[in-house]
Amino acid sequence: MAPVNNIVQYNNNEHPPTFKVTVVGSGNWGSVASKLIASNTLKLSSFHDEVKMWVFEETLPSGEKLTDVINDTNENVKYLPGIKLGRNVVADPDLENAVRDANMLVFVTPHQFMEGICKKLIGKIRSDSQAISLIKGMEVKKEGPCMISTLISQQLGVNCCVLMGANIANEIAVEKFSEATVGYRGNREIAENWVQLFSTPYFMVSACQDVEGVELCGTLKNVVAIAAGFVDGLDMGNNTKAAIMRIGLREMKAFSKLLFSSVKDSTFFESCGVADLITTCLGGRNRKCAEAFAKNGGKRSFDELEAEMLQGQKLQGVSTAKEVYEVLKHKGWLEMFPLFTTVHEICTGRLPPTSIVEYSEHTPKFPLVGGPTAFP
Amino acid sequence: MAPVNNIVQYNNNEHPPTFKVTVVGSGNWGSVASKLIASNTLKLSSFHDEVKMWVFEETLPSGEKLTDVINDTNENVKYLPGIKLGRNVVADPDLENAVRDANMLVFVTPHQFMEGICKKLIGKIRSDSQAISLIKGMEVKKEGPCMISTLISQQLGVNCCVLMGANIANEIAVEKFSEATVGYRGNREIAENWVQLFSTPYFMVSACQDVEGVELCGTLKNVVAIAAGFVDGLDMGNNTKAAIMRIGLREMKAFSKLLFSSVKDSTFFESCGVADLITTCLGGRNRKCAEAFAKNGGKRSFDELEAEMLQGQKLQGVSTAKEVYEVLKHKGWLEMFPLFTTVHEICTGRLPPTSIVEYSEHTPKFPLVGGPTAFP
Repeated sequence: MAPVNNIVQYNNNEHPPTFKVTVVGSGNWGSVASKLIASNTLKLSSFHDEVKMWVFEETLPSGEKLTDVINDTNENVKYLPGIKLGRNVVADPDLENAVRDANMLVFVTPHQFMEGICKKLIGKIRSDSQAISLIKGMEVKKEGPCMISTLISQQLGVNCCVLMGANIANEIAVEKFSEATVGYRGNREIAENWVQLFSTPYFMVSACQDVEGVELCGTLKNVVAIAAGFVDGLDMGNNTKAAIMRIGLREMKAFSKLLFSSVKDSTFFESCGVADLITTCLGGRNRKCAEAFAKNGGKRSFDELEAEMLQGQKLQGVSTAKEVYEVLKHKGWLEMFPLFTTVHEICTGRLPPTSIVEYSEHTPKFPLVGGPTAFP
Repeated sequence: MAPVNNIVQYNNNEHPPTFKVTVVGSGNWGSVASKLIASNTLKLSSFHDEVKMWVFEETLPSGEKLTDVINDTNENVKYLPGIKLGRNVVADPDLENAVRDANMLVFVTPHQFMEGICKKLIGKIRSDSQAISLIKGMEVKKEGPCMISTLISQQLGVNCCVLMGANIANEIAVEKFSEATVGYRGNREIAENWVQLFSTPYFMVSACQDVEGVELCGTLKNVVAIAAGFVDGLDMGNNTKAAIMRIGLREMKAFSKLLFSSVKDSTFFESCGVADLITTCLGGRNRKCAEAFAKNGGKRSFDELEAEMLQGQKLQGVSTAKEVYEVLKHKGWLEMFPLFTTVHEICTGRLPPTSIVEYSEHTPKFPLVGGPTAFP
């Protein structure tokens, strides 16, 4: 019987699939990303069913290799226990082998590993590869931010999109509704391909032509979360918290636009902007430690609180606040960003936590009548 | 001794003050507004010190008149007990008398009283009067919203600004930091005058040339708060709640812009937009009742829950959702606003509370790849 339309043709594999996906990274978020992707490659005819997932090999307490257990049980027992990834996810401990056949590369590792990973991949990937980075928290150097998407693009000579948003991995793993934003540079078709690959009925993805804006949101929100945590610790109530979050969002926007004139206001209405900010300021470890810091009147340092509350993890918000402060100082912008500036000065003990809600007095240059034209 | 500068001259009353303020309304928010204003008229030379506050006269359980007690104790013992309003606040039960000398009129009554108040004021106010409305929650009629600022402008023949924002009255009364937005139509100088009159170190006011946008935010956020309450009641977590709030903000923006082409995107970044939305979705009675509604699986009606939880107050969110639904239906826009539509259908029992996070499936026309151009 002749196929009645293109879809049937594709399903019959008369047209072989075009895209083959490898996920580079297998932590909590990497595993959830693999699960989302694997559910779609089975349904979408233009993608190969199999999704390779590069795993940084570890030996489990049982003596087994993590990759073996993932491939046997179809679960990442260490970083996402209890969740089936999909039988078409294949864990591979060999980076070079994992990427060899892929032309869609999803990067989702801790950001400090990316430089090393890129170096290993030079010359090893397909020339028609597309990349996307799910990595939040690039460094902000004095001269400006060191975007992970730029690192990937430059090192590997590929186009690199980003995917950011209000994405608590464990909530998406159990299929609670959420959203994400794909930031892309020029080619909308490629962006739509990524949107297709990630979208599920419970994970709604939109594309936004603004790589820098989307990626910067993912980093800068952590500074605002520190401020929100101070407000919580001071018991200031929802009014004040909402005001601080709003001012934070405004500074995120202003900072991004000053660094990259291509950044769009509308990006901050996307999931990567306002939604991720809300999630991070409601829950999240930056908020939580900052709350404890303020409750203690700043008498216990962040280092001490982190050690106690985070079991060895470090707070990105505190270091990002420092990095942002360096940029502001370098550029002569400190007075334009009272919230970012004050967060850093509180973290370092130069100001008390209460000054987070007094900065309007400290900084008379803050535009009182501040329409969109008064502030970038 | 000669005055050394203009400020000293003004303080010496060599230039008589230009502006005289009357606050029409004396509920919780009206009393806090009077306190803010009264602290500023004492400091600002262009304003008369005295602030008249029109009080809807009531006899207290003690047998005393409310106005007498306010003027004796300098407290609104019924609606803002424990807070000194400032000795320059003078309560007046006679509406006509209260407004007679004023040329800056601040309206802050329940919205259902405004039509009657306007009727009484026709021909009774100074011809050089400026007005501002602090009233949230105008009605949205089938043909479009019935803006309170428009009602005041048309009935009284005055220019009318609005002041909205994340403003929980009791938090501002105890001088916790918050912000507000003044929406104005044409004259920036007048807007700055209002900004001056309300601004204090703990109450930061910005002006925004977009009366309709600012005023619509104050009403539409209550519909989103109902949605956020459902998410809380269903125990969906912060990711989902943030996503729903973001989609709600987007629909607020889209709805406002379709009704008034003058509405600006940037307005939704102001306190009246994102900050008020956050406050309302974190606390607030709309959120709270909707949470209870969802926890009961929609089996107890909003009428029943309101009666039990709100001591006779009515939820604005539920009635606004109905009004917005009527507009959407009338204009053929239902499919463009899945969140607004779904909230109403849940409130009326046509859909279960869980559908608040399933609507993306119900409404395939929702733009999946939705940059700012794909959606108004």
